[in-house]
Amino acid sequence: MTRVTAGEALAGYLNGQAAELLRSLRLHDENAGSADTAAEATEAIRVLRRAARRINGTLHTFRPLLDADWAERFSAELGWLSGLLAREYAYAARLSRLLAALHRLSAPADGHGSGQDSGIGAARAGALLERQLTLSRTRAHSAALRALGSARFHAVADGVAVLASEAPVDAKAAERPASAVMRPLAELAHRCLIESVDALPLGPGALAHTLAAAEERHTTEGGHDTAWHQVRRLVRLVRYAQEALGAAGGDSTALVLASHHLNRHRDAAGAAAAAAAAGRTPRIAPATAYALGVLHADQRHEVEAARLAFCRIWHPRGEAAHG
Amino acid sequence: MTRVTAGEALAGYLNGQAAELLRSLRLHDENAGSADTAAEATEAIRVLRRAARRINGTLHTFRPLLDADWAERFSAELGWLSGLLAREYAYAARLSRLLAALHRLSAPADGHGSGQDSGIGAARAGALLERQLTLSRTRAHSAALRALGSARFHAVADGVAVLASEAPVDAKAAERPASAVMRPLAELAHRCLIESVDALPLGPGALAHTLAAAEERHTTEGGHDTAWHQVRRLVRLVRYAQEALGAAGGDSTALVLASHHLNRHRDAAGAAAAAAAAGRTPRIAPATAYALGVLHADQRHEVEAARLAFCRIWHPRGEAAHG
Repeated sequence: MTRVTAGEALAGYLNGQAAELLRSLRLHDENAGSADTAAEATEAIRVLRRAARRINGTLHTFRPLLDADWAERFSAELGWLSGLLAREYAYAARLSRLLAALHRLSAPADGHGSGQDSGIGAARAGALLERQLTLSRTRAHSAALRALGSARFHAVADGVAVLASEAPVDAKAAERPASAVMRPLAELAHRCLIESVDALPLGPGALAHTLAAAEERHTTEGGHDTAWHQVRRLVRLVRYAQEALGAAGGDSTALVLASHHLNRHRDAAGAAAAAAAAGRTPRIAPATAYALGVLHADQRHEVEAARLAFCRIWHPRGEAAHG
Repeated sequence: MTRVTAGEALAGYLNGQAAELLRSLRLHDENAGSADTAAEATEAIRVLRRAARRINGTLHTFRPLLDADWAERFSAELGWLSGLLAREYAYAARLSRLLAALHRLSAPADGHGSGQDSGIGAARAGALLERQLTLSRTRAHSAALRALGSARFHAVADGVAVLASEAPVDAKAAERPASAVMRPLAELAHRCLIESVDALPLGPGALAHTLAAAEERHTTEGGHDTAWHQVRRLVRLVRYAQEALGAAGGDSTALVLASHHLNRHRDAAGAAAAAAAAGRTPRIAPATAYALGVLHADQRHEVEAARLAFCRIWHPRGEAAHG
């Protein structure tokens, strides 16, 4: 590790991720527009977003070693692109999650029985969510297509193409060992993560404030979630910094697991909010509203379960469990 | 222990509980009918039920040592009395539990704010539950008062008065040591409990089938609950058998804790069913139905939490956790 220079490690990582982004962009362009290859196009977007997140995280953590102005501008543009491409996928995933939960909640428990009489509220709630989330998804899809044809996007793609061959690493830092100049920055990111986890608000127990959240939109249900979402982003930064350092051992399995639970947390929180939003639809039948209430509570329960799972990984010896 | 005869232990325990029952009945009669002493009357009924449960459990576990025909008849009458007196209390407790949960669920999470705009659904759900459960409670109260004036009740009270001075213990068994004739029966009760716990259905996870249960009334949500309620009764039988044997050490703390969680389980399951029943009220507003759905899910979550807590006591070393 001491023999690798910061220039080699940092530029190497950025070059690799930029090449991956360009490759997935090409794959997307080849496969988009045909129903036969829609799955390939979707997968290409997933890989593209994965590379964009890594570039963005690297620009953030190792900014002192890079051209700061360029890094800031490029990071903002990459964030715009990732956010735009994430939305369509997020609505689709949210709908699947909610329909699966409704299925689980309304399945007749004896394992047989047609269940035709049961689940009228669940069926209507499912149809309502499908309508609402499909509409959002379609809009996100159109917005993403428009963006991929825009001058702004082409500027980002050009920037990535440059990054695939050269990265603007500070000349003096580039000569020094990666362990001397990159590791302290990776450790700083790790310290930020630890502090954010320590500052996580202790939840008042599963489902508290659920109804206030359902009716008010702006509540600490969402407020607490935000602190957790921030931890999710910080875990990623630490993982990407470790990758850039080529140090993917030790902690990293725990970090991957932590990321998994924090993603689950984010998905469940989003799904709970979508169920609550659907519950505010005017003139729905009481049975539909009832099912959406159960669904909201179910997803908030998932939020709590994900927090608990994260805490078990974070405090494996049972010290000071959160939630 | 070997020096105590079965007659002394068994008759002594039954005499003591019968005397307690008569004392609480007298206290109830002295305090009922006046608003000033309503709390004393309620407390007297609680003590009365406590003694009735112990007598009933003892008649069940140690039936081979008693006049079997008498024990069966008397047990049925005591069961009738306990059930009747329990109902009023159960409705009151269920209402408090549900209103407390609604309060927790709809409290604005930021700790201040009047919350006047929020919680309209929660407020209406609370009012609906209050109406429905207060009506049930009032009916149960009237039924209990009628029963306490009935010839059937006076026959039970006469039976208890006899039991307070003499218990029909089999003459041969009465001479033998309690450890020889009572302990095997207590161990049999304990074995029954262990088998019932081992046979508990593994839950498909919190909240599964909640919506089916809300709309169908007869489902495995209730079906699984029944097996757990049975375990609750068996834990009690074992505790009372230990009390009768004068052996209240060792396991008994764990059994008291287990009882606590199983009571919590029963209360939460009853509250969830009441929320679901209220959710089926015709012509309620969607916001009310939504709040009742959240409340139902919240109480099913409590059911799961109580099961988990029971399992942690039952399998303290983490072997084969249920749920």
